[in-house]
Amino acid sequence: MLVIIFNKNIDMSTINTKKARELTEMIWWINSRGWSPATSTNYSFKNSANPLVMAISQSGIDKAKFETDHLMLIDESGTPLPAYSHMKSSAETYLHTVLYQENPDVEVILHTHSIFATILSQRYLAQGHLLLENYEVLKGLGNIKTHEVAVTIPVFENTQDIETLSEDFRKLYRAQPDMQGYLIAGHGLYTWGKNFAVAKRHLEVLEFLLECEYRKLCWS
Amino acid sequence: MLVIIFNKNIDMSTINTKKARELTEMIWWINSRGWSPATSTNYSFKNSANPLVMAISQSGIDKAKFETDHLMLIDESGTPLPAYSHMKSSAETYLHTVLYQENPDVEVILHTHSIFATILSQRYLAQGHLLLENYEVLKGLGNIKTHEVAVTIPVFENTQDIETLSEDFRKLYRAQPDMQGYLIAGHGLYTWGKNFAVAKRHLEVLEFLLECEYRKLCWS
Amino acid sequence: MLVIIFNKNIDMSTINTKKARELTEMIWWINSRGWSPATSTNYSFKNSANPLVMAISQSGIDKAKFETDHLMLIDESGTPLPAYSHMKSSAETYLHTVLYQENPDVEVILHTHSIFATILSQRYLAQGHLLLENYEVLKGLGNIKTHEVAVTIPVFENTQDIETLSEDFRKLYRAQPDMQGYLIAGHGLYTWGKNFAVAKRHLEVLEFLLECEYRKLCWS
Amino acid sequence: MLVIIFNKNIDMSTINTKKARELTEMIWWINSRGWSPATSTNYSFKNSANPLVMAISQSGIDKAKFETDHLMLIDESGTPLPAYSHMKSSAETYLHTVLYQENPDVEVILHTHSIFATILSQRYLAQGHLLLENYEVLKGLGNIKTHEVAVTIPVFENTQDIETLSEDFRKLYRAQPDMQGYLIAGHGLYTWGKNFAVAKRHLEVLEFLLECEYRKLCWS
Repeated sequence: MLVIIFNKNIDMSTINTKKARELTEMIWWINSRGWSPATSTNYSFKNSANPLVMAISQSGIDKAKFETDHLMLIDESGTPLPAYSHMKSSAETYLHTVLYQENPDVEVILHTHSIFATILSQRYLAQGHLLLENYEVLKGLGNIKTHEVAVTIPVFENTQDIETLSEDFRKLYRAQPDMQGYLIAGHGLYTWGKNFAVAKRHLEVLEFLLECEYRKLCWS
Repeated sequence: MLVIIFNKNIDMSTINTKKARELTEMIWWINSRGWSPATSTNYSFKNSANPLVMAISQSGIDKAKFETDHLMLIDESGTPLPAYSHMKSSAETYLHTVLYQENPDVEVILHTHSIFATILSQRYLAQGHLLLENYEVLKGLGNIKTHEVAVTIPVFENTQDIETLSEDFRKLYRAQPDMQGYLIAGHGLYTWGKNFAVAKRHLEVLEFLLECEYRKLCWS
Repeated sequence: MLVIIFNKNIDMSTINTKKARELTEMIWWINSRGWSPATSTNYSFKNSANPLVMAISQSGIDKAKFETDHLMLIDESGTPLPAYSHMKSSAETYLHTVLYQENPDVEVILHTHSIFATILSQRYLAQGHLLLENYEVLKGLGNIKTHEVAVTIPVFENTQDIETLSEDFRKLYRAQPDMQGYLIAGHGLYTWGKNFAVAKRHLEVLEFLLECEYRKLCWS
Repeated sequence: MLVIIFNKNIDMSTINTKKARELTEMIWWINSRGWSPATSTNYSFKNSANPLVMAISQSGIDKAKFETDHLMLIDESGTPLPAYSHMKSSAETYLHTVLYQENPDVEVILHTHSIFATILSQRYLAQGHLLLENYEVLKGLGNIKTHEVAVTIPVFENTQDIETLSEDFRKLYRAQPDMQGYLIAGHGLYTWGKNFAVAKRHLEVLEFLLECEYRKLCWS
């Protein structure tokens, strides 16, 4: 199951097999939580920095059956490297490439579709963000050292025009460089980290707090 | 556990053992999600097209303990093939046979009983359908390429007169050939696909969105 | 782990090791569903009919760690057989013995503590019962052949005076011999069957419908 | 995975490997329930009574990947023993040491972060406690022999000043020595026991009842 590409005539890059395995196991865990229904969601890691090459999940795979050879390498423009030209990455590939361009410390990007991300993003679209405050687990986001903090999670309108959305994200990220995640309405969550452990921690913080926020809307 | 029937004097058909195994594993997964309580639910695949023979789950089996030899072959009229005449399929067998007759591309039919399908179908019976819109995962239904779509899931009244219900379904399906699933009030969901992967994807889309719809009814 | 008692001088009965194993595996499944928190709940099967001897779960065991040797034999009065005199069965033992006395067809009794059984029994105590109707899965209870039926689940007040509660149950059961389960307020559910498969089916029907009823109380 | 320290020149204490294994397995179970998101939560057991030495979980570990060698020994003041001076325990270490000082019967302390503990503690902070009554499973707390009891779970304001919080807890615990758990607002639950089985039972009782209380706030 580990993918090793020897044909260096075609492609100077070989996929990082340890990271490919790590991402695959993370996808299985995400699927077991119900956050990747119906072949949805996409995931990537930075395979090399210079030139920027990313490993990203192929489109349309049941995440319960994801394997390392469902990963493909793409360049900074989102184009598959030659060895992967027969594969198709997600329509949302640009949302990955833009973030790797903007922040060289980002190594892993996770995009999930939970129930709570889906419906809270619909609810808070008009407001443009979801506010999280007075939660101890906010300390799990980046460099936050106290719960006495208010974190806003931006909510973008859903669109099939991913290039425009990517540029909208790029602008907002430059204005809010501490951002650790964002929502797309009726769609899902993007979060990331400097390694797999941090990306997973961010995902757990945000999904936990989305469920907290939802549940507090339901009590009388 | 794989069922192979050698007695060709009795029966020209032998069950497709690969598909039997695939359906059995899907039933275990469905059961693990809580969508097949108390021996309820039924499942089938098309075993041969000409003549039309279906493999369908035997009635009354605990789905946690389902095995391939709990599958039986039936003909287009729902009658067990001779080798299976000692077995009984579900009372709802006609709901399967009608759909295979109407659409030769359907290869797999899944009928589940989730909490959300049960209670939302009760709620929306008077209205006759449940409307789903502004969800990215709607793209997982059939040929939908955008979230900017409204999908209606028909809701039928529950009845023990399955022949009449089957004909009601047949009429509606001819009028709405893009339909990928329907609900029966207080009962559950039917969905299907051209293979196991598509049928599972449709089931995941619909169960995910039923939960979304339910949860949005609960917040204030 | 299978319990075999050879000392026939002390005790004419030996525990049915197949049933002991079957009950133990059912307890693990019940625990995995979250229906037996904090060492609560109790379970039994009829080990012999004449004289009536029951195998019942020892009190105070973490159900995640239940083993067949946590089962003990008791006689019709609830007294441990001599080989088990060092063990203690639940305070609720009489609720088991009364039912085996009243209905010789009952072979298995399951008493669980789910969230929904706990809070719905509190809610419906004043009314004295919970009404279930218009659900297809009601067909999983006993001899019901249609969903067009209304089933009432009695709710008893919780008490530590189990002897009185047992006699209250006995009276109601004689008046309602089709009863397949009852609730005790703030406490949990009792259900049963003529064998393990039927008892499990009744448990799944009732827990499924308790969750349906709860969820319908929450939507607006 | 079992940690054995032979260097007795550095450290008179060796970690109790049986207890280290028992706690590690309990942490895995707690994680599987969703009660330890995003590297949060901390756990300890008393490794020796005289002098008082505690084994406590190292800070910042993903609880899905916790191993026995993520445990470290600390003295009564919360200072790591020499062999563990390269490790860092949680900022909340004092909340453990104070309780071991106050009650020599406490052997295990569990601090979890469930959804329900997080949001109910926010809700009941102004009131200062959460009242639990009319629940059979309250019998699983300490020496309670009946459900006819009202148990109050104190709620403390969240703070990063753990020393002050520890002394506030110490005062309240002396006033309420039957206390078996408390909440910190927007943060989580502390509970404990004289051994692992009792601590787990207390955790299950309290999490079960937090969910019951939450769910009763949601129905109309």
